[in-house]
Amino acid sequence: MTKPLRIALAGLGTVGAGVVRLLEANAALIARRAGRGIEIVAISARDRSKDRGVDLSRFEWVDDTTALAAHPDADVVVELVGGSDGPALTLARATLKAGKGFVTANKAMIAHHGLELARAAESAGAALKFEAAVAGGIPVIKGLREGMAANEIARVYGILNGTCNFILSKMEAEGRDFADVLAEAQALGFAESDPTFDIDGVDAAHKLAILASIAFGTQPAFPQVVANGIRHVIAADIAEAAQLGYRIRLLGVAEDGPHGLFQRVHPHLVPVSHPLAHVTGATNAVVAEGNFVGRLLFQGAGAGDGPTASAVVADLIDIARGEFGPAFAMPADSLGEHQAADSGERRTRSYVRFTVEDRVGVLAEIAAAMRDAGVSIESLIQRGSGADGAVLVAIVTHEGPERAVAQALERLRGSQSLVGQPMWMHILG
Amino acid sequence: MTKPLRIALAGLGTVGAGVVRLLEANAALIARRAGRGIEIVAISARDRSKDRGVDLSRFEWVDDTTALAAHPDADVVVELVGGSDGPALTLARATLKAGKGFVTANKAMIAHHGLELARAAESAGAALKFEAAVAGGIPVIKGLREGMAANEIARVYGILNGTCNFILSKMEAEGRDFADVLAEAQALGFAESDPTFDIDGVDAAHKLAILASIAFGTQPAFPQVVANGIRHVIAADIAEAAQLGYRIRLLGVAEDGPHGLFQRVHPHLVPVSHPLAHVTGATNAVVAEGNFVGRLLFQGAGAGDGPTASAVVADLIDIARGEFGPAFAMPADSLGEHQAADSGERRTRSYVRFTVEDRVGVLAEIAAAMRDAGVSIESLIQRGSGADGAVLVAIVTHEGPERAVAQALERLRGSQSLVGQPMWMHILG
Repeated sequence: MTKPLRIALAGLGTVGAGVVRLLEANAALIARRAGRGIEIVAISARDRSKDRGVDLSRFEWVDDTTALAAHPDADVVVELVGGSDGPALTLARATLKAGKGFVTANKAMIAHHGLELARAAESAGAALKFEAAVAGGIPVIKGLREGMAANEIARVYGILNGTCNFILSKMEAEGRDFADVLAEAQALGFAESDPTFDIDGVDAAHKLAILASIAFGTQPAFPQVVANGIRHVIAADIAEAAQLGYRIRLLGVAEDGPHGLFQRVHPHLVPVSHPLAHVTGATNAVVAEGNFVGRLLFQGAGAGDGPTASAVVADLIDIARGEFGPAFAMPADSLGEHQAADSGERRTRSYVRFTVEDRVGVLAEIAAAMRDAGVSIESLIQRGSGADGAVLVAIVTHEGPERAVAQALERLRGSQSLVGQPMWMHILG
Repeated sequence: MTKPLRIALAGLGTVGAGVVRLLEANAALIARRAGRGIEIVAISARDRSKDRGVDLSRFEWVDDTTALAAHPDADVVVELVGGSDGPALTLARATLKAGKGFVTANKAMIAHHGLELARAAESAGAALKFEAAVAGGIPVIKGLREGMAANEIARVYGILNGTCNFILSKMEAEGRDFADVLAEAQALGFAESDPTFDIDGVDAAHKLAILASIAFGTQPAFPQVVANGIRHVIAADIAEAAQLGYRIRLLGVAEDGPHGLFQRVHPHLVPVSHPLAHVTGATNAVVAEGNFVGRLLFQGAGAGDGPTASAVVADLIDIARGEFGPAFAMPADSLGEHQAADSGERRTRSYVRFTVEDRVGVLAEIAAAMRDAGVSIESLIQRGSGADGAVLVAIVTHEGPERAVAQALERLRGSQSLVGQPMWMHILG
């Protein structure tokens, strides 16, 4: 057997400790599969004294995390520090410059700086891998980069944030409202104490930008992703959607076409006949549509120490086997630079829910705004809600350009009839 | 750009023609992703004159298929001839001996001769790849070999035959019986005129043996797979299962444990909460359970020219990129040789349906046989059926060793009370 692949590990949070545990627990099996052992030689984290539940005494401790890049015994640096810039980025640049492999779970850094890092990796002939950055343990980067490599991919979309899916499916199962379920998710450790990145769709947007780049052969374009979260989904939306045969899921959706690159994170109505409607809890799932293979679905745990460590070590095994190449499926210089698509031209069916005052003429006002903007209504439900006296009007439109719905909502802006903002969601087609 | 990867293509059925179409339609994209073009240089099939709907005039025609192995311009031979032995195997052996790469969709040949071919590939330093052999376009070989490579895999199972799933989900949706739906599936081209390999589970068994080998690091052991099909599933089974919260799916299930390698193809009751319960039509889906990643699901089209061609060309792109290694995830000589597990020790919940004479004492006879064999009954439903006067007794057992159920059925064998054979299915847990 050839000599082992030697790892320097930066970051010893739950995922870092998971990688240590995994490499130990499955060492013999990994050596059989990789054709050589994978061994940690040095570790670094902020706090040396913290108990992480794993024995770290046999590894060399390095105080300065970024110094791992120059560690003479390390072939590969694994970065689990996090943050789009700062020490993680410094470490990534230095590692690749030194010609060592670099494996990371850092979606923010790859979404922001992936192109630069891919170029650096190619210049140095080094591996850059980030399977764990998207959808945790699910090998979806590999699925797109390799499994679907023969296909022109028209669309990639999915449930990319486990926290949001946990909250939405709990709201669905128990008929509860967002704030209430969020509080419980926080208490259970399924949501961060500051949940903004998750519930406002930023985390999913990072992942979507990475998937889109690999699927379409375009440069990662995170600033183009329009991200919305689930804060404004109410229990009544879920109930209305269910009546109509849909479930609400926060989806990242990316499409590439003649009008440019479309990337959006937004709650969607998903038909119950679609597999994503049956993805509950913190599970992630990604769908990609290829021109020969059709629709593929990849589903599994999107977070957690075990699944994320599984993806990190899968990358290490690829490197140990010598089975790696350009990080974004093709050389960085051949990735296209696509303009953001004008979503106004995009044709979809929409769900729009208004909370309105209970008085004469409200419905006529909404209907007129829709008509004047050219929105064709497929169904409309008005329902008096309970305690607070507010009334809900939920509209499903026929397929049409998004611009028309946006114009209708613009016409209604500032109307005295509306209570709060309308909730506009797209229907997955 | 480096020089193209040059292909000799054996077999021009629907999949072969699909590969020709795909390589033409997506040529530019494939060259960007693979770092080089992929070009067909020679083709061979039984009938030169047949119209296959693609222009073959620019390729060199070779009459003797097995001569492709020695073609001086070919780097890789793609075999889409089929058959576990015969010309396909001759071609595989000759190609690998000549040090060329070999890509195939031939599940029967890999299930029977995969170990020998993997050894030959390794001796020659040549690629052997067969993503298309299992679950059509779904990159599940890659998912197990690479995506889950860090995990000890305890179980791999799934819907591996699209014809059977098409028939079962149509029986389910329309309440019809097997023979009736099979005839329609044949008329629609979803089932072969001789459907034996599909409906008796042999096709799924080939695929299962390949998946098990990669998942567990064991030699492919097709002769150990116990294969049963869906011939004896009746509409009433599907209705009873639905009442109990299950759907019936033909599953290939493989487990590796201290008692040996368990491999079985059999109709199962799948809880509606499980994603496989929502897989309908000709779709395939594979689940694998890893000790760190948990449960992963891969789903998509399991057959058809486009999806299968997608998998074949994905293999070619891996080869063009130089990203390949041992076919069964580890060197052939390190694959373990595991005994077939004694399924009697296996603990499951079972569904057993009897068709019985409508007379006094029948239920007591069945109940006594179960009791005497130590089978604990969770629920029992007796239902008079319609026209033919037969009565159904459907039993769901508590978890217990399979041996006990087998013994109960043995006690009832030859009983005058039973009409036909009992139908025994396991409940996916």
